[in-house]
Amino acid sequence: MSTYNKIGFIKGGQLARMILQQTAGFGIKSYVLDDDPACPARELCDDFSLGESSDFDDVYRFGKKLDLLTFEYEHINIEALKKLQSEGLPVYPDPKILEIVQDKGLQKNFYKDHDIPTSEFRLVAGRPDLATCTNLLPAVQKTRRAGYDGRGVHRLDTAGDYATAFNEPSIVERRVDFEKEISVLLARNAKGETAVYPTVEMLFHPIKNLVEFLLSPANIPKDVDAQARRIALQIAGTLGVVGVLAVEMFVTKEGAVLVNEIAVRVHNSGHHTIEANCTSQFEQHMRAVLGMPLGPTDATSAAVMVNILGGEGFEGPAKYEGIPEAIGMGGVYVHLYGKAITRPFRKMGHATVVDANANEALRKARQVKDLIKVKA
Amino acid sequence: MSTYNKIGFIKGGQLARMILQQTAGFGIKSYVLDDDPACPARELCDDFSLGESSDFDDVYRFGKKLDLLTFEYEHINIEALKKLQSEGLPVYPDPKILEIVQDKGLQKNFYKDHDIPTSEFRLVAGRPDLATCTNLLPAVQKTRRAGYDGRGVHRLDTAGDYATAFNEPSIVERRVDFEKEISVLLARNAKGETAVYPTVEMLFHPIKNLVEFLLSPANIPKDVDAQARRIALQIAGTLGVVGVLAVEMFVTKEGAVLVNEIAVRVHNSGHHTIEANCTSQFEQHMRAVLGMPLGPTDATSAAVMVNILGGEGFEGPAKYEGIPEAIGMGGVYVHLYGKAITRPFRKMGHATVVDANANEALRKARQVKDLIKVKA
Repeated sequence: MSTYNKIGFIKGGQLARMILQQTAGFGIKSYVLDDDPACPARELCDDFSLGESSDFDDVYRFGKKLDLLTFEYEHINIEALKKLQSEGLPVYPDPKILEIVQDKGLQKNFYKDHDIPTSEFRLVAGRPDLATCTNLLPAVQKTRRAGYDGRGVHRLDTAGDYATAFNEPSIVERRVDFEKEISVLLARNAKGETAVYPTVEMLFHPIKNLVEFLLSPANIPKDVDAQARRIALQIAGTLGVVGVLAVEMFVTKEGAVLVNEIAVRVHNSGHHTIEANCTSQFEQHMRAVLGMPLGPTDATSAAVMVNILGGEGFEGPAKYEGIPEAIGMGGVYVHLYGKAITRPFRKMGHATVVDANANEALRKARQVKDLIKVKA
Repeated sequence: MSTYNKIGFIKGGQLARMILQQTAGFGIKSYVLDDDPACPARELCDDFSLGESSDFDDVYRFGKKLDLLTFEYEHINIEALKKLQSEGLPVYPDPKILEIVQDKGLQKNFYKDHDIPTSEFRLVAGRPDLATCTNLLPAVQKTRRAGYDGRGVHRLDTAGDYATAFNEPSIVERRVDFEKEISVLLARNAKGETAVYPTVEMLFHPIKNLVEFLLSPANIPKDVDAQARRIALQIAGTLGVVGVLAVEMFVTKEGAVLVNEIAVRVHNSGHHTIEANCTSQFEQHMRAVLGMPLGPTDATSAAVMVNILGGEGFEGPAKYEGIPEAIGMGGVYVHLYGKAITRPFRKMGHATVVDANANEALRKARQVKDLIKVKA
């Protein structure tokens, strides 16, 4: 369907799995690199390579099989990607963007350099530098590398919290007294065409820093929405993203929009697009990287997405409870990721609740969350 | 997600492929039996068995691996299915239904026995019996077995056409002077719960007897629609279908509805449900056979589906033209079936055009049909 045939994905988690699922009709030959031989995308890909995304040789060797390389994960050996690119392999999004996204310090500097609103911050080399951050308190310390889903994050309420802080290169951000967390998902292709999805709103799990409910559309004033979309488009254009970009933002009590972080890949905040938007984020990402025209992003319904997480206290072969009951509520769609082993809070799947009435969708989603249990 | 884990499909064409694609999140282990090692579903299934659907041993041996067996094709060895069922394997839909559907003579008798409106007909053993059918002229002769997509069909305009007719067990049907051909798709689970899709209208290719455009919803009067839905539900209930049932019907110039034929499987007339209805026919079939609650069938938009057929005069490795241009029109979704080899009129894929305005969707679908070419 495009001029590219052999398409590589680093790595093969649920995001790659859903890309392969949603684009099984694209006529491509799919290659996956992952360090887990039982990774979710393995069942759906045409060719699987066992290897580390951080290893130069593994990534380079993988890339030499391909016509085009894309990712569902950002912590990849950049040197290998740049060498592949210099040897003629299209790599989308560009490794230069990954380099920025891999490092929360570079990410924050990028926002500052381009007048993109974000919370006040300082870069620190380690624990001793925290003394220079007292004017930012109460704050959050985030390690510059490899933090996600709440890992690598430390609260700094007072100077007394410095002693237990990370002693490694980090950013210290003034804590934002936010009203809401929202996300703008968009796709951009190499021609610079963009397609922006309706803004969504995230409700996080109070303890684990994981999205608990995702509401589409976000319940925010029009001008806030317009700001958020403008910022997301500015980031996509400035970085020259090719593929899907997710921009997570805080909305402050005063209605200001501040960028929290970005992901240059399909994203948890776009899973509902399978059922609730004209074109899913997974199809859209592939259209973008393959150089195809983008699809319409309109919502066909209000929707709430709920992650299905491994139950606390269970580790081992996953057993699911309550799925028929959840589905029986009507308008409930369950996606399991094919992970054999459950662990507490592991993302095992998600459910999307579709309802013309947004409140009703959220009410059902709360029930779905109570009904579906992952045990071992 | 259900009590069944190992699910078998006979065979592995595009219908099974799309079931596997749409239900990749169901957490099942999928087995496929097909006589073509390059069949479309092979890439997406967990376990592939090479074998003939008509062969007792192939079907029986395949079934012994499974927790549940279903089909995307009707011409299967019934004795093997019945033996598997008697040994405790759930087989959906029931082999007794397949037995009726495999034989157009039994199908017609079923309609007659249950007062289901259908065109006047007579069963004949072969060519010599045609002389008894003169009162049905102009008529159509259809072989009782193994005819589909226009094969096994012979026009009988006058007695002069008898000489070139099939000399095998057939039905002879009075030709219906119909206004439209429509299809009602529904799903029914083992509890007897049903979910009926909005009625669709089919526009056939004038030469090859293949659906060219499928319009959802059908443009028919309410009372005709109500008749059609009532008939489809009657058939599903009387047969005790578990799974998806497609009922193809003629609407006469007088507004009468006559059953043409049925398929007890997912069907070409439901491909648009992936994009244009709340629950796709593929997910719905699996919900039904797995004993899960059915999903809502509401249309989210008007849609037109167009089959992507192998171009005339081309046979060999398939090359596609015009797909980016078609997709670029907006609201156009292409599904290729992963068939390496094209042949004239082979079903290589389909495209669904989604538009709030049904006329606009049809206009675009005609353009899509002109744009997308399958060559070798």
